[in-house]
Amino acid sequence: MAQESVIKNTGLRGVKVADTKVSFIDGEKGVLIYSGYSIEDLAGHSTFEETAYLLLKGELPTSSELESFKNRIASYSVLPDHLVQSMKLWPRESNPMRILMAAISIISFEDKDSEDSAHSYIDKSAKLIASMAVVMVAWERIRKGLDPLPYSADLSHAENILHMMTGKKPDPEVSKVLDICLILHADHTFNASTFACREVVSTQADIYAGVLAGLAALSGPLHGGANEKAMNMMDELRNEDDIESWIKTKLSKKEKIYGMGHAVYKTYDPRSSILKKILEKLSSDTGQSELYELCATVEDIAVKILSEKGKDQIKPNIDFYSGTVYKMMGFPHDLFTPLFAVSRIAGWCAHIIEERFGLAQEKPSLYRPAAEYIGNYCGLTGCEYKSRSD
Amino acid sequence: MAQESVIKNTGLRGVKVADTKVSFIDGEKGVLIYSGYSIEDLAGHSTFEETAYLLLKGELPTSSELESFKNRIASYSVLPDHLVQSMKLWPRESNPMRILMAAISIISFEDKDSEDSAHSYIDKSAKLIASMAVVMVAWERIRKGLDPLPYSADLSHAENILHMMTGKKPDPEVSKVLDICLILHADHTFNASTFACREVVSTQADIYAGVLAGLAALSGPLHGGANEKAMNMMDELRNEDDIESWIKTKLSKKEKIYGMGHAVYKTYDPRSSILKKILEKLSSDTGQSELYELCATVEDIAVKILSEKGKDQIKPNIDFYSGTVYKMMGFPHDLFTPLFAVSRIAGWCAHIIEERFGLAQEKPSLYRPAAEYIGNYCGLTGCEYKSRSD
Repeated sequence: MAQESVIKNTGLRGVKVADTKVSFIDGEKGVLIYSGYSIEDLAGHSTFEETAYLLLKGELPTSSELESFKNRIASYSVLPDHLVQSMKLWPRESNPMRILMAAISIISFEDKDSEDSAHSYIDKSAKLIASMAVVMVAWERIRKGLDPLPYSADLSHAENILHMMTGKKPDPEVSKVLDICLILHADHTFNASTFACREVVSTQADIYAGVLAGLAALSGPLHGGANEKAMNMMDELRNEDDIESWIKTKLSKKEKIYGMGHAVYKTYDPRSSILKKILEKLSSDTGQSELYELCATVEDIAVKILSEKGKDQIKPNIDFYSGTVYKMMGFPHDLFTPLFAVSRIAGWCAHIIEERFGLAQEKPSLYRPAAEYIGNYCGLTGCEYKSRSD
Repeated sequence: MAQESVIKNTGLRGVKVADTKVSFIDGEKGVLIYSGYSIEDLAGHSTFEETAYLLLKGELPTSSELESFKNRIASYSVLPDHLVQSMKLWPRESNPMRILMAAISIISFEDKDSEDSAHSYIDKSAKLIASMAVVMVAWERIRKGLDPLPYSADLSHAENILHMMTGKKPDPEVSKVLDICLILHADHTFNASTFACREVVSTQADIYAGVLAGLAALSGPLHGGANEKAMNMMDELRNEDDIESWIKTKLSKKEKIYGMGHAVYKTYDPRSSILKKILEKLSSDTGQSELYELCATVEDIAVKILSEKGKDQIKPNIDFYSGTVYKMMGFPHDLFTPLFAVSRIAGWCAHIIEERFGLAQEKPSLYRPAAEYIGNYCGLTGCEYKSRSD
């Protein structure tokens, strides 16, 4: 082709494929901004619901807009009966990420809105934000043989998640920690799952199909699964006398230290700094200070060793602390990645709306890259077709 | 970033993002090759099962390898009972593409193979090839209030699809036409759905997650939905006296003529030539020659008008004829896109295996592009956070 270009085998790293108004990262300076607002300000002052509104609409809501948005989320919190009945038939040991993919597909069945529009997609986003949390917690109860509990319009989204999990009145401090975790994970520009959402809806596929691709990508151990792996590493290191030599051995075998380093950040991930402080307080409040100390020690040693190797841009990313925070809050390990989805659904929907109805008008209708063929080749007429003999 | 590059708003058109051995297109010359073999040879001599094996393994099977592969497909054709029971609970008017997404997610529940490997993925590919067809047809029966029919190891995949749909012994000629359609749609390099599969598994997500993203992308009207739209256009044109002025009006309003033009082919899509011949024969055999004549007339007029406008690279693509072929075979309209998936699953799996275990070793671990932030900006510290008043 005439305008052929080659960016082969780079994973498109650093390649700007589109414009966006949703979020911005300065990887050199460790800055993350959602629609103009710094992640520090949002974590400090906002709530997940308000942040979700900001991502979806591009501006902070007034208090009545926020109230109405929260009511819309609550109004969508009742799962269709054919979904709940189906879930009760499924094997209890099924992975919760796979459950989410099945459930979101089933939730799409009743969507009759053939006229896709930015307006209807804000409403569908509220539905998907509600559904992701409600399905995750419903599964946690169904697999224990319990009935799902209802969502309450009087509680925050974070409080609802904790309440629907346990049936107990959630602790305000723990709820706030979860709320901040949801804010921190809500968007992150063109990460692998968000790019999958955008790529899928570039074919004019609907918002459910886009979100499904996001879930599919997030299920990968290199993406959504990293926080669980980082926490497993901490668990392993609890009983380790010589952390320094453990890390050195790991690195000399070219194995990954999960939660360290990032495709975009070349300095401290701003979300990790916030989470680290939260973990410090939470661990002290819950009498588990030794867990915070362990994480901080592992970080210090890993950063020191990596820096000695000239890799001083490798710092803890958000996954380094989030698994430990979730564990301390009582979530089972296999809900860590679903919790990521419960938050990132806000960003996915914002990017889907932008891709379908926003800034993408000038670009060709769908993402359709090319590849270099290096396979079997007998010219343009093909190899001689004959079956191989046994 | 240092190596930042910008390919903004091009949909990555013509951008080579990876190596592949699966298939090759020469868009200028109208050539399509699967693992070395021309699409003409495969359509003329191969079967869908053999072609699927070729895509997955990179070489044609011996007759015993083919036999064993077909037996593996047949062995995976029984859906889990909790899936069939769930399907019976779902609203009958649900879109079959959404049903496929839900069902493939549910089929993944029982996958216990935590050790992903190229070897296990060939086996899982056979399972997914079986499942896609069986689910599509099972849904067609369940929504009519009928029980699904079993797959038979004695019939070809195409014959099974027809038999499971109707319960009748399939006509050999119709089965062969379906077999050729499955061959023609089985792969097409880095199209939008295949790229979605590869992007998703680049996070080390599993083959089910990859396939789910493929289904999600294929559900988009610009991708898998185009054949249905092209056929609807033919339906509309049946009662049109002046086809030429209808097309002229359409083009002057900058509306799409579905099934015309392609992101990669700048000449006749080689698959369309094959399908056009098939349609001619099938329509004559079934006494529906007027439908073939109509398609051929629309093609001639559209190509002539477009050529006069200097757009002589716009020719019919595969979607121009496939919808009409499916209709003639008795498939309901909303199964046209699922039928695409029933075939493309072979290519999706081949690309997933290549992405996970094949040629991609040298590239960064996942697709993670960048974007240009053009949103609200108050510098790196963010805008001043304050709620808007009502």
